[in-house]
Amino acid sequence: MNGSPSDALEPLGHTGDLDEDRLREYCGVFGIFDHQDAAVYTALGLHSLQHRGQEAAGIVSFDGKRFHAERRLGLVGDHFSKESTIKRLPGSAAIGHVRYATTGETILRNVQPLFAELNTGGFAVGHNGNLTNALSLRKELIEAGAIFQSTSDTEVILHLVARSRKEKMIDRFIEALQRIEGAYALVVMTNHKLIGARDPLGIRPLVLGELEGKYILASETCALDILGARFVRDVENGEIVVISDEGLQSIKPFPKQAMRPCIFEYIYFARPDSIVHGRPVYEVRKAMGAQLARERRIEADVVVPVPDSGVPAALGYSRTAGIPFELGIIRNHYVGRTFIQPTQSVREIGVRLKHSANRSVVEGKRVILIDDSIVRGTTSVKIVQMMRDAGATEVHFLISSPPITNPDYYGIDTPQKEKLLAATHSLEEMRQWIGSDSLAFLSVDGIYRAMGEPGRNNLQPQFTDHCFTGDYPTPLTDLMAENRAQLSLLAEAS
Amino acid sequence: MNGSPSDALEPLGHTGDLDEDRLREYCGVFGIFDHQDAAVYTALGLHSLQHRGQEAAGIVSFDGKRFHAERRLGLVGDHFSKESTIKRLPGSAAIGHVRYATTGETILRNVQPLFAELNTGGFAVGHNGNLTNALSLRKELIEAGAIFQSTSDTEVILHLVARSRKEKMIDRFIEALQRIEGAYALVVMTNHKLIGARDPLGIRPLVLGELEGKYILASETCALDILGARFVRDVENGEIVVISDEGLQSIKPFPKQAMRPCIFEYIYFARPDSIVHGRPVYEVRKAMGAQLARERRIEADVVVPVPDSGVPAALGYSRTAGIPFELGIIRNHYVGRTFIQPTQSVREIGVRLKHSANRSVVEGKRVILIDDSIVRGTTSVKIVQMMRDAGATEVHFLISSPPITNPDYYGIDTPQKEKLLAATHSLEEMRQWIGSDSLAFLSVDGIYRAMGEPGRNNLQPQFTDHCFTGDYPTPLTDLMAENRAQLSLLAEAS
Amino acid sequence: MNGSPSDALEPLGHTGDLDEDRLREYCGVFGIFDHQDAAVYTALGLHSLQHRGQEAAGIVSFDGKRFHAERRLGLVGDHFSKESTIKRLPGSAAIGHVRYATTGETILRNVQPLFAELNTGGFAVGHNGNLTNALSLRKELIEAGAIFQSTSDTEVILHLVARSRKEKMIDRFIEALQRIEGAYALVVMTNHKLIGARDPLGIRPLVLGELEGKYILASETCALDILGARFVRDVENGEIVVISDEGLQSIKPFPKQAMRPCIFEYIYFARPDSIVHGRPVYEVRKAMGAQLARERRIEADVVVPVPDSGVPAALGYSRTAGIPFELGIIRNHYVGRTFIQPTQSVREIGVRLKHSANRSVVEGKRVILIDDSIVRGTTSVKIVQMMRDAGATEVHFLISSPPITNPDYYGIDTPQKEKLLAATHSLEEMRQWIGSDSLAFLSVDGIYRAMGEPGRNNLQPQFTDHCFTGDYPTPLTDLMAENRAQLSLLAEAS
Amino acid sequence: MNGSPSDALEPLGHTGDLDEDRLREYCGVFGIFDHQDAAVYTALGLHSLQHRGQEAAGIVSFDGKRFHAERRLGLVGDHFSKESTIKRLPGSAAIGHVRYATTGETILRNVQPLFAELNTGGFAVGHNGNLTNALSLRKELIEAGAIFQSTSDTEVILHLVARSRKEKMIDRFIEALQRIEGAYALVVMTNHKLIGARDPLGIRPLVLGELEGKYILASETCALDILGARFVRDVENGEIVVISDEGLQSIKPFPKQAMRPCIFEYIYFARPDSIVHGRPVYEVRKAMGAQLARERRIEADVVVPVPDSGVPAALGYSRTAGIPFELGIIRNHYVGRTFIQPTQSVREIGVRLKHSANRSVVEGKRVILIDDSIVRGTTSVKIVQMMRDAGATEVHFLISSPPITNPDYYGIDTPQKEKLLAATHSLEEMRQWIGSDSLAFLSVDGIYRAMGEPGRNNLQPQFTDHCFTGDYPTPLTDLMAENRAQLSLLAEAS
Repeated sequence: MNGSPSDALEPLGHTGDLDEDRLREYCGVFGIFDHQDAAVYTALGLHSLQHRGQEAAGIVSFDGKRFHAERRLGLVGDHFSKESTIKRLPGSAAIGHVRYATTGETILRNVQPLFAELNTGGFAVGHNGNLTNALSLRKELIEAGAIFQSTSDTEVILHLVARSRKEKMIDRFIEALQRIEGAYALVVMTNHKLIGARDPLGIRPLVLGELEGKYILASETCALDILGARFVRDVENGEIVVISDEGLQSIKPFPKQAMRPCIFEYIYFARPDSIVHGRPVYEVRKAMGAQLARERRIEADVVVPVPDSGVPAALGYSRTAGIPFELGIIRNHYVGRTFIQPTQSVREIGVRLKHSANRSVVEGKRVILIDDSIVRGTTSVKIVQMMRDAGATEVHFLISSPPITNPDYYGIDTPQKEKLLAATHSLEEMRQWIGSDSLAFLSVDGIYRAMGEPGRNNLQPQFTDHCFTGDYPTPLTDLMAENRAQLSLLAEAS
Repeated sequence: MNGSPSDALEPLGHTGDLDEDRLREYCGVFGIFDHQDAAVYTALGLHSLQHRGQEAAGIVSFDGKRFHAERRLGLVGDHFSKESTIKRLPGSAAIGHVRYATTGETILRNVQPLFAELNTGGFAVGHNGNLTNALSLRKELIEAGAIFQSTSDTEVILHLVARSRKEKMIDRFIEALQRIEGAYALVVMTNHKLIGARDPLGIRPLVLGELEGKYILASETCALDILGARFVRDVENGEIVVISDEGLQSIKPFPKQAMRPCIFEYIYFARPDSIVHGRPVYEVRKAMGAQLARERRIEADVVVPVPDSGVPAALGYSRTAGIPFELGIIRNHYVGRTFIQPTQSVREIGVRLKHSANRSVVEGKRVILIDDSIVRGTTSVKIVQMMRDAGATEVHFLISSPPITNPDYYGIDTPQKEKLLAATHSLEEMRQWIGSDSLAFLSVDGIYRAMGEPGRNNLQPQFTDHCFTGDYPTPLTDLMAENRAQLSLLAEAS
Repeated sequence: MNGSPSDALEPLGHTGDLDEDRLREYCGVFGIFDHQDAAVYTALGLHSLQHRGQEAAGIVSFDGKRFHAERRLGLVGDHFSKESTIKRLPGSAAIGHVRYATTGETILRNVQPLFAELNTGGFAVGHNGNLTNALSLRKELIEAGAIFQSTSDTEVILHLVARSRKEKMIDRFIEALQRIEGAYALVVMTNHKLIGARDPLGIRPLVLGELEGKYILASETCALDILGARFVRDVENGEIVVISDEGLQSIKPFPKQAMRPCIFEYIYFARPDSIVHGRPVYEVRKAMGAQLARERRIEADVVVPVPDSGVPAALGYSRTAGIPFELGIIRNHYVGRTFIQPTQSVREIGVRLKHSANRSVVEGKRVILIDDSIVRGTTSVKIVQMMRDAGATEVHFLISSPPITNPDYYGIDTPQKEKLLAATHSLEEMRQWIGSDSLAFLSVDGIYRAMGEPGRNNLQPQFTDHCFTGDYPTPLTDLMAENRAQLSLLAEAS
Repeated sequence: MNGSPSDALEPLGHTGDLDEDRLREYCGVFGIFDHQDAAVYTALGLHSLQHRGQEAAGIVSFDGKRFHAERRLGLVGDHFSKESTIKRLPGSAAIGHVRYATTGETILRNVQPLFAELNTGGFAVGHNGNLTNALSLRKELIEAGAIFQSTSDTEVILHLVARSRKEKMIDRFIEALQRIEGAYALVVMTNHKLIGARDPLGIRPLVLGELEGKYILASETCALDILGARFVRDVENGEIVVISDEGLQSIKPFPKQAMRPCIFEYIYFARPDSIVHGRPVYEVRKAMGAQLARERRIEADVVVPVPDSGVPAALGYSRTAGIPFELGIIRNHYVGRTFIQPTQSVREIGVRLKHSANRSVVEGKRVILIDDSIVRGTTSVKIVQMMRDAGATEVHFLISSPPITNPDYYGIDTPQKEKLLAATHSLEEMRQWIGSDSLAFLSVDGIYRAMGEPGRNNLQPQFTDHCFTGDYPTPLTDLMAENRAQLSLLAEAS
């Protein structure tokens, strides 16, 4: 490679946000059954899952007779903290959803939970994940006379359930699940039941909790903690849990398989205080830093985390390497929008809008910078330069996960392969472009070791890790069919 | 009569709006084909049809590849006057819709034009009227696996078209029309065509216009006038007009019937400068006033219209009776919301917020008040009292149409029968309750005469006039089936 | 004159508002003392005075201890109808103000009533009119160390009162009035008093009313009517009325002079149902139309008013001339903003956005159009063309007041002299530019006759009428001093 | 101690914000002279000073002829990032101000910079600090005829300057400074100059910077860093710096005194990356933690900071004590408003809305919690309980500054003395109420040592530290005069 991916530089120049170059989760889900404060608790649960999606939020409640839906663009706390909104969500059962902002289709029709009136009653669904055969199914359903009202992949589930000839709602739902492929953690609410379901590999997370004898479903344990609820267990891969007045029933309609959860929940998505499949996320991240110190020891004066997600790994590195941990980069908590940039000098301010170097701990020092990942690399360039501007004599850039070389199709917003820095550059090319004195990534086996495994089991990998390995765990049906051309005939702004 | 309908008094007390006791049209429609300014012209056309619906407005355009939709709560001029909105509606074909505010379901999902992606391409539809078998069809479609996304009766048309086994779009549409009952003027846009359709009796209006060689469809001629377009002809009852690159094609899929348009377009709905089925509305209203003067001559000093809809009839009465026409009631143009009313004295201000007596022309005079109709009668009480408070020695209340005794089911918002003053009170009871010195209505034959007819042809009535006569022109299927109970399981606020 | 004032055409092209070419009043005032609903009543009074100013509104109340102020851009009904706003205005005394939009200085600091904390207590003032020596006084006060916070001429009154060495508040106020020149109707509220004051000539109106034994001050009687209050009398020219717990006291600090009120209140500003100095405005306007018919009889088929302000004069003309009155122009009530105008064809729609010709009463007819005045003439061109486009065979344009040849400096927003059509064109030039078959104005003596006078008394004119005659009633001190250059060093947007 | 200050608990229960119990700075200031991007740079500078005030922000620019002002409630980035706002601030000189939210007077009139038009030209001023004789001066000025338009203490400076009889602007300003008492860092802009001034003791900070040869004034060095500007020096106590086309002039109109800056800038106010009087704030805070470890060594398993302000001190403690530093409390970045709390169980969620315990590092551990200060103590109770709920076996609460026993009157928002926990409780009473196993504060001499001093010089203290010692550095004139009763007669909402 000879040139730098200069077009990719632009986004950060505008907002100065170091988090701009992180992968993003599409969604978080929550559900509660038979609780007097169902809507408020769902709002609070979604609030604690806000890091999984900041574009939009929705709640559907059921009051024994009617379903009530509120969907809003924006943060949970902006809308669902209000009494007027909560009052429009009566009833003792509710499900909710937070959604990440993708460009172009940020419209209210796509905000979940989606709802359909079936002849057996109402059916509401919230989905975290992505279906890899949604477009193929959509095409088939439209040919059969179905009318789609959103561009969401999730809507095919509604139509499959609506059109099933099975008599019982749950059998219709199972029939629908058997048609869909990809990753999903679903919360479903019908007139009489709250249902949770996870795809056969358990790619996306879903946990079961309990509060005052009532069941809760949520993407992460932190949504249980905020309510003071007790963690019961993870919903298993391929499991359907049906919660009703008769208690909890577990259904496993798929052939038994080993679980293979997404490894990125540990690296970046999950909150550090969540416990995912028995592993505390904060401890895993420290262990990644420690493992990195074992794999790549560097002579330096300070270990500086890229805030905020690099902090636990930096603590782990610091402790194992015996090099002091310092806050060498300070975050400004008050950034809203991008400032106008009339002249070149203002444009250069860039990254300083949200972060500034803490000169007193950087100047004249050999600095080890720790970050959790590199996607396009656009922010890495800036942060290394910021350290140099503050007087660092050496800057070593260490990443507590392996190089990202492949896009995701299971609910993580990744750029196309050609925009992934590690997919198109050698390690040395990357280092040169980023401008650090050295650059290193955690090895694939190293990240498995930080998870408590002896290494990656290549015959039966313990995690979904195609972003590092290219080993996709399910067929990519839509991608093969090149269905993407015509997602929808309708463009709508709100 | 034993009691006064006192609960009915409340609404006016709050807003002081004399127009509160008028019947309301549900909708207006517009479409234009093959014109470079399609979206702007549709916005302007809808603006001139704003009197037919002030709750919400929507436009769908087609740019040759994709459909673009913008739907908004509020007035056309509030949203569709903006460049940013119009820019999101590219293309040379567009249809639009304005909608009246009904309670409870003022949600964006119900704002038309509705759109469906069919396997033959996109299908957008705007509807003025009401289907009298929509709930029965909806139930049938849900049982067959259809998912409804609105509570609008219009959505059944989408599903009927989507599920038709016919090959050609137009044949699917005809098949759908043959299933629906009631009143409709439809504008439809597909990938290649603009289509207009009117129900077999032609209850709701639809006209065809032409501008610079391009076709336009609109509810009223005033939408042609604002654009400087030429009136071509009314779309006929039971006619489908198909506009495409090959020109205009007329299809008449129903057995031939005499037209029977809604008489209320002449009395209140249509704009006075519109021409409906060859009759200028302003002239018809003057003729109603003149006919009223012939039927009911009263000794008085001044003829005062209830503004603004009573003005033409008052001019007609004044001229025929030889009594001076005066603006005895002045309208305040600046009323937005209702003012708070902390004490009884403020509450009594009521109607004066929007209207005030012009004391100089009322004091010491015998006043003939002319209004176009009485629905609940709540404003009539106030306006008569306002004249007395201003010093009128006599107040005679004359109505330029017959008593309304039956609700509508074809797209007019009427209260239930028991709230209609004339349905539950004798003429003398009405007069006592309203508090006027005399009260008179135009006769049924009289209103037909004002239309240029010799009288009502009871064997084959020339107009849809069930509000006065109880003679409904089509079966009321849903009403018979008592389907209303469960319109939808989902309540949503936006 | 050879060319047309083409630049002046632009404004109307944008909004299509016939009212754009009217003169505008700057303000309306209201005050009430010792009434439990003081703030609500002030809001209602201001609402009925909304025609005097639509830019902004403000209310100051006094609760016995503290003053409370709410000022807002926008209509009274948009803000002061809300309970939350009214609750922030406690107390039994209040004054209020509505203000017209002038360009450039639409900022909250200028919204009245203005307030100052003096060592004798609070002092709030609302002002209708304009001071002709405000800039001279302002300069003098700044030199003495005063700090101005608005660009309003009214603020000099505050400073004059604050700096007076008199002991009693009322003596300070009188001292201030003796320094100011020009036109003013003032309402003032102090800790213990409500005060009204009118300039020595009584140019701007102010009336005294009474409700339940409590006094009210207002610009027009229509503000009394909305509350059901009784008209007591006009405040006299040069009179100060002081309302306190001890009742009403009248002070006349100026040498006695004949009253000389502004004639434009009758022509355009006052609401038709108001009674100004004993004359009902509606009747005066009809009399202007009747006088016009006597001065200028034309053979024609219909008399058509330019809505809405031309209606009474048109009724008067019609009746005297024996030619039928018809609504030949229909107003669309639903216009908010300007629509975008991407192409020439859309731009030509212009005036039709707000008004449309009623073809059925214009086509093939000789039309007499009646309007109340011509300022720049920009809308006159359009309205005449609209009549021709609708098929009028002749269009005669008659104005129910004399030609406007001089700007105002007393609180009416007039363009500079060179923009006034009649100041720069002969009658025939005006006719040609407007495009009518004939053009006529009411004579100056004629308008005095319509007011019940035998004609203008040129030695001691009964009205302030310099816009027609150039006869300014007071010195124009600031204009002489050419003080306008530096109104303020501070430009602020809100 | 007899009772717990239970009413004080309420605020946190509502918002769950740990930062609610911190002291708050009133303001930050910025100024730049002769730079083409003056307004944008001022906006960026204010953005980096946002931690000093989040209620409102304002900028005044001067374009060589006119001053331009924009003042807004809300964050800098919400308003001053927009091109439309910056365009209304032309010119090459500008000053700006950010302001903290105090209750009751959050009105636009109080938002700085304030402006006055003097006969020598315009005068704009932004003020960080508080004048201790402002009310006495205000009373005196009102008696002399001055009209105040804000309730800000800063406005007295404007009036003193306006009324000075000195000829030169700078002499007027010096005369004004000689009348005022208390703490101030001022930025002033006149037609030709940018001026900075600091009170005789230098209580509030002000630094001088330079960018491309142009001078900058700012409250902290972080505002220079964001622009890439160079730190020149601190403005000295009692110094006036005058920046004009002729360069920089230093004036020292007061008798020479030792500097005595506010110690709280180091403890909490200043950003960790700022350098205040030569000391890096981050290093000082670490030194406070280290000193605390020397004064109070505790046997424990983990050191946990209260986020975010406790982090540097916790790092310092951890390193000196040799106990691991861990993020035991996780902050949720997405909190906007308070959620509704319909039932007791929801109310108990309280602090978990913004923070959650990181159970994996707390459970079964002896925890040392490090915070920077205790004001009311309301959040301390919650955070200790949160640690216990997460399974901590011991919780030791250590504060890296001395007990706060006295309110501030120099620009820090402190509660009244009786609400300060340490003012009314013994150490053991505090510990019991907070519920920790032990409680300790840094000593007064200890904090001086962390600053590099040998201890507090009680004869001539090196810092303003009355909050800990009661030793106020200036007379408290207004407090003596009990002038507070009537701050203003006018209450206004916006």
